[in-house]
Amino acid sequence: MQSDKSVVQDLIAVLTQRGLRYAVVSPGSRHAPVSLSLWHHPDIELTVIPDERAAGYFALGIAQYTHQPVALVCTSGTALSNYGPAAAEAFYQQLPLIFISADRPAEWVDQGDGQTIRQSGLLDRHVRASFDLMQDDDHHDIKWFNRRMVHEAWEAATSLQPGPVHLNIGLREPLYQLIESHTETPRPRKKVQGIPALNSTQLAPYQETIAATEKVLVIVGQQAFDAQLSEAVGRFSALEQVLVLTETTSNIRHGERVSCIDRLIMTFDDEDENAFIPELLITIGGQLISKKIKALLRRKFKGAHWHISADGTGMDTFQRLTDVIACEPSLFVTALTESNRTSTYHHIYYNLHTRLSSLEISTAEALGWSDLLVFRHLTARIPASTILQMGNSSVVRYIQLFDQRDDLRYYGNRGTSGIDGCTSTASGMASCAEEIVTLISGDIAFFYDINGLWHQAPRNMLRVVVINNGGGNIFRIIDGPSTTEASATVFEAAHQQNASQLAAHFGITYRAVDSAKALDAAIEWLYAGEQCKLIEVFTRDVANEDILKQSFREIKKRLKPE
Amino acid sequence: MQSDKSVVQDLIAVLTQRGLRYAVVSPGSRHAPVSLSLWHHPDIELTVIPDERAAGYFALGIAQYTHQPVALVCTSGTALSNYGPAAAEAFYQQLPLIFISADRPAEWVDQGDGQTIRQSGLLDRHVRASFDLMQDDDHHDIKWFNRRMVHEAWEAATSLQPGPVHLNIGLREPLYQLIESHTETPRPRKKVQGIPALNSTQLAPYQETIAATEKVLVIVGQQAFDAQLSEAVGRFSALEQVLVLTETTSNIRHGERVSCIDRLIMTFDDEDENAFIPELLITIGGQLISKKIKALLRRKFKGAHWHISADGTGMDTFQRLTDVIACEPSLFVTALTESNRTSTYHHIYYNLHTRLSSLEISTAEALGWSDLLVFRHLTARIPASTILQMGNSSVVRYIQLFDQRDDLRYYGNRGTSGIDGCTSTASGMASCAEEIVTLISGDIAFFYDINGLWHQAPRNMLRVVVINNGGGNIFRIIDGPSTTEASATVFEAAHQQNASQLAAHFGITYRAVDSAKALDAAIEWLYAGEQCKLIEVFTRDVANEDILKQSFREIKKRLKPE
Repeated sequence: MQSDKSVVQDLIAVLTQRGLRYAVVSPGSRHAPVSLSLWHHPDIELTVIPDERAAGYFALGIAQYTHQPVALVCTSGTALSNYGPAAAEAFYQQLPLIFISADRPAEWVDQGDGQTIRQSGLLDRHVRASFDLMQDDDHHDIKWFNRRMVHEAWEAATSLQPGPVHLNIGLREPLYQLIESHTETPRPRKKVQGIPALNSTQLAPYQETIAATEKVLVIVGQQAFDAQLSEAVGRFSALEQVLVLTETTSNIRHGERVSCIDRLIMTFDDEDENAFIPELLITIGGQLISKKIKALLRRKFKGAHWHISADGTGMDTFQRLTDVIACEPSLFVTALTESNRTSTYHHIYYNLHTRLSSLEISTAEALGWSDLLVFRHLTARIPASTILQMGNSSVVRYIQLFDQRDDLRYYGNRGTSGIDGCTSTASGMASCAEEIVTLISGDIAFFYDINGLWHQAPRNMLRVVVINNGGGNIFRIIDGPSTTEASATVFEAAHQQNASQLAAHFGITYRAVDSAKALDAAIEWLYAGEQCKLIEVFTRDVANEDILKQSFREIKKRLKPE
Repeated sequence: MQSDKSVVQDLIAVLTQRGLRYAVVSPGSRHAPVSLSLWHHPDIELTVIPDERAAGYFALGIAQYTHQPVALVCTSGTALSNYGPAAAEAFYQQLPLIFISADRPAEWVDQGDGQTIRQSGLLDRHVRASFDLMQDDDHHDIKWFNRRMVHEAWEAATSLQPGPVHLNIGLREPLYQLIESHTETPRPRKKVQGIPALNSTQLAPYQETIAATEKVLVIVGQQAFDAQLSEAVGRFSALEQVLVLTETTSNIRHGERVSCIDRLIMTFDDEDENAFIPELLITIGGQLISKKIKALLRRKFKGAHWHISADGTGMDTFQRLTDVIACEPSLFVTALTESNRTSTYHHIYYNLHTRLSSLEISTAEALGWSDLLVFRHLTARIPASTILQMGNSSVVRYIQLFDQRDDLRYYGNRGTSGIDGCTSTASGMASCAEEIVTLISGDIAFFYDINGLWHQAPRNMLRVVVINNGGGNIFRIIDGPSTTEASATVFEAAHQQNASQLAAHFGITYRAVDSAKALDAAIEWLYAGEQCKLIEVFTRDVANEDILKQSFREIKKRLKPE
C-alpha cells in the first residue's frame, strides 16, 4: 500500500532503491502520503517520535550507529523549524539525515492557512542541499526533476562531505488515498565515489618533512570509528618523533596516544609548554573538546599545520593552517609511517600521560565524593562493549580527564556542543543498537531534552546516568562567571529538582545515589537485566568545582614536588 | 553595573531608551555581557527560561499581554535555532519579539569551535529584519552603525506591520568584565507613526457599495483586543445588511455577531449555503480557525472581497481578493456605518446563531461524558475576567463551538497553529498578567511543551486544564486519517500516559477528573486560592469523535425536523 500521489511514490521508490532503511516520523496529517507509504513499505523501520526536536536528534543517533542515511518526516508548520537544532548538529558531525517536510502547496504560503510557514529552504544554513518537490508532475520533465532531486539529495547526504539534506513537498488534499502498487518504477541510479589519494610525487615532500622533523604533533578530533584510520594512526604513533593526541570522540583505538589532552596540558608551566610545542602539526577529524590545546597552540605554535580530510575542507582551528590535504586520511597517514627518526618527543609525553593516569585516580579517590569521583567510578566500572553517549558540557569534559578505554565507544554531540538533544540521540542509538548504550548526562541537559524519552521505540538497550549537581556547573569550571553575583540564576539555572518523577512518568526504573559505595552498587544494578534504568547521582551539596581545581593542584604538586 | 563592551552598552541603552521592560534569558555563557547588563538594569524585568524553545514562546505570551516588545537573549550555537518556532509564530501573529543571540566572532564560524553555528540571518524567513552588531566599534561609524541597527530593529518590530527581529552579536572573551556606568549615552531617536486613513474621495465608493448591497459578510480573524475596532465592528454589525462572523481569537466583544462559525455552517444544506453566500466580503485581522468558512467561500463566493489592514498586506484567504485597503480598520469600518439599508441578512443568521446556542448546550448535556461535554462545562463555568490560552488544535476548535463570552479574553497560537509552545505562552502571559490565565491543552500539546513549566517565574496566576483523550484526537475529527490502520500510531501518537507525575515534578497541585460532576467541582477547586493548579480530564475511553459528529447530526435534526 502506498499513496496515490506519484510525487510521493517516486520519493519513496528512489529512497528505498538507494538503500533507505530507517525513518523517524512525527505525528501530523499533511505528511500522510509520505508517512503512510513508509509505514506500509516492507524495507522501512519506522519510529514515531512526537516532538520534532527530539525526533531530529533521535534520527541522528540512528545515523551515528548505522552510518546510513535516516529519513525524517514531519507535518507542515513549525514542525520543520524544530528540526533546526539537529540539522545543525548533523551538519557539523557530517551525518546523513534526510529531512522531509510536508508543506501546503507553495501558492498557499502567507495566506493565513493553518500550519503554513515559509518552509522552502528553511534549514538552508545547515544542510548540504535542499529541494522543493512538485506535486503537479503530469509533465514528464517534472517527474524527471522530482526523481533527480531525490537522487541528488541522497548523493549530497552521502558524499565525501556527508551531511543533512532537506526535501520539502507541497501536498494538496485529499491526503489519505492509498493504492496497492507503484504505477511505474523509477529507473535506478547509483554513484561510485572515488577515494582521493595523493600520488607519489605529491606525497614525497610530506614524507621528507616527517623524516626531517623532530616534533610532529598529531591531533584527532571528532569522527565516527574508522578501523583503517585507527590502525594507520596506531602505526604512525610508533614513530619516535610523532606524538598523537586524541579526543575520546575521535574513536581512535590503536597505538600509543595521549587520550587526556587537558590533563596533560594543565601540568605545564611556561617552560614545559615551550618544550611541548611541535615543529609540525597534523590534524584529522572534526571538533576538538579540549580548550587548553586550542589556546596553547594559538598562543605559541608557529610551525606548519597540515589538515587532512577526504572532502578537502580546511578547518583552521589554530590560525596557522598551511596545507589543506584532500586525501583519505588513512592513506595519507599510512604513507608517512616509513619515515621514523630518532627523537624523544613521543616517549616523554606518553610516559607523562601514564604517570598522570595513576596520579589522577588516587587523587580523585582521596578528595572524596564529588563529580570528579563519580566520573572516576563511572569510567572505570561501566561494562566492556558499552557505547557511551556523553552529554554536554561538563560530562564530556570530565570524561576526557580519565584514560580512554578501548573497549568502549564514545559519542557526544560535539558538532555544535548543544545540550538540546543528548537524551534523544542516545535514545535513537539505543533503539537500533546491539550493544548497551549508556547516556551520561548533567541535570540541565537531561531536563532540557526530556522529550527524548517520549516515544514507544525499544529502549531495553538504554541506560541513563544523570549527575545532578543542582545546575549548570560547567559555568563554574570555565573561567569567568563565578565572579558575578547573577551567575547562579543567569548562567547555571540553579535548581532543587530531581529526575525521579520524570523517570516514573516514562516508566523507567529509578535509583538515587549519593555516595561512592552506593554508586558502585548502582552501576552493577544498572546493567543487571534487560531493561532501561536510570541512576541519579546527587553531588549538589559538594563544592565540585573546588575539588576539580584542587585535584589539578594536587596532581601538579605530586608530579613536581617543590 | 554593565558590561565593559561598548557594543553591548549601546544595545542596552538604545533598547531601554525605546522602552524595553521585559527580557527572557536562557542560561549560557557567551551572552554574559548582554545578560549581566540586563540583570543589573533597574528598568528590566528579567526571567530565566532554560529551554530556548520554551523561552521564545514564554516571551510571546508576555508580548501578547503587554503589547510591548520583549527581548530574548540566548547563548551561541543551537540555542538560537530553538527560537525558530516562536519566531514563526510571532511573525504571523505580528508580535514584537527582539531575538538577541550572542555569537562567536564571525571570523570563527565553521572552524570547529564549540557552540558555533551559522547564526547570522538564521531566523530570516520569519523576522521583519535581522542585523549583525559589531564588537570592534573603535571607529565612530561602527558605533553609529550599531546604534542605528538597534533603532531600526525596534522600529521594524513596532511598525504598522509589527513582528520579530533578530540581532546577532559576535562577542570576544573576556565576557564577564563589568563597569559601573555607561561611558556615553547614545543620542535618543524616536519614530512617530502616522495612522493610515482614507480620504472622503477614497471612501465614497466603498460607502456607496455598502448602502447598495443586501448581503455584506464581515469576518474577523486573529488579533489582539483593540477597543476602538471592537466598538466600530459592534456599531457596523447593527446594519441590517451586515453579518459579522468572529473567531474568539479576534477578541471582538461588541455588537451582534456569530461567534461560532463552524456551528452555523455545519447546519447548512446546499440551498442554505446559497442563501448565506454574500455579495460582498470584508475581512479584518489574521488567521481564521474555521475550515468550513474557508471551504464554503472558496467554493461558492464570487463577489468582491475587501481586506482591510493598517499595514496594507493583502492576505487572499478565499482566492477572491479584489480590494486591499491599507487603512486603520476601525477608521474604515466607522466610515461605513452610516450606510444602512433594508435587509433580512443579519437577522436570519443572528437568530439561527442564538437558536443553535441553546440546541448545542442541551445536546452536549444529553450525549453525556465526552470532550464535547467537557468543553461545554469549561466554557460555561470558567470565572469572569479570566484569560483563556487555547491549545492547538482540538481545544481551539472545540471552544469555537460554544458561544464566545464577552467577560473572557481568548488567545491561541493560531499564527502557525503549532502545538510546540502553548504551555510556554500561557506561562509567559501568567508571569506578568493581573488576571488569571487558564491554559486549556490537549494531552499531546501538553507533553510536547512540558518545558514551558520549567522555570522559576511567578505562576500563581496560571491554571492548567489538560484534556487527556489518549492521543491527538484532532486527526479523528478532521476528515481522512481515521480510515487507515496506521492512524493511531502515525497521526495521533496514541498513549496511556497521564500528567500526574509531571505536575508533581514541577510542584503543581493536581487533580484527576473523569465525570461531569467531578469536573464541576474541580473547576471550583481550580480557582480557589492563589496558586497554580492542574486538572487532568480523562475522556480517553470515550468515542469523542463519534459523539461530536452525533451532536452535529442531533442539532441539525432538531433544527430541521424531517
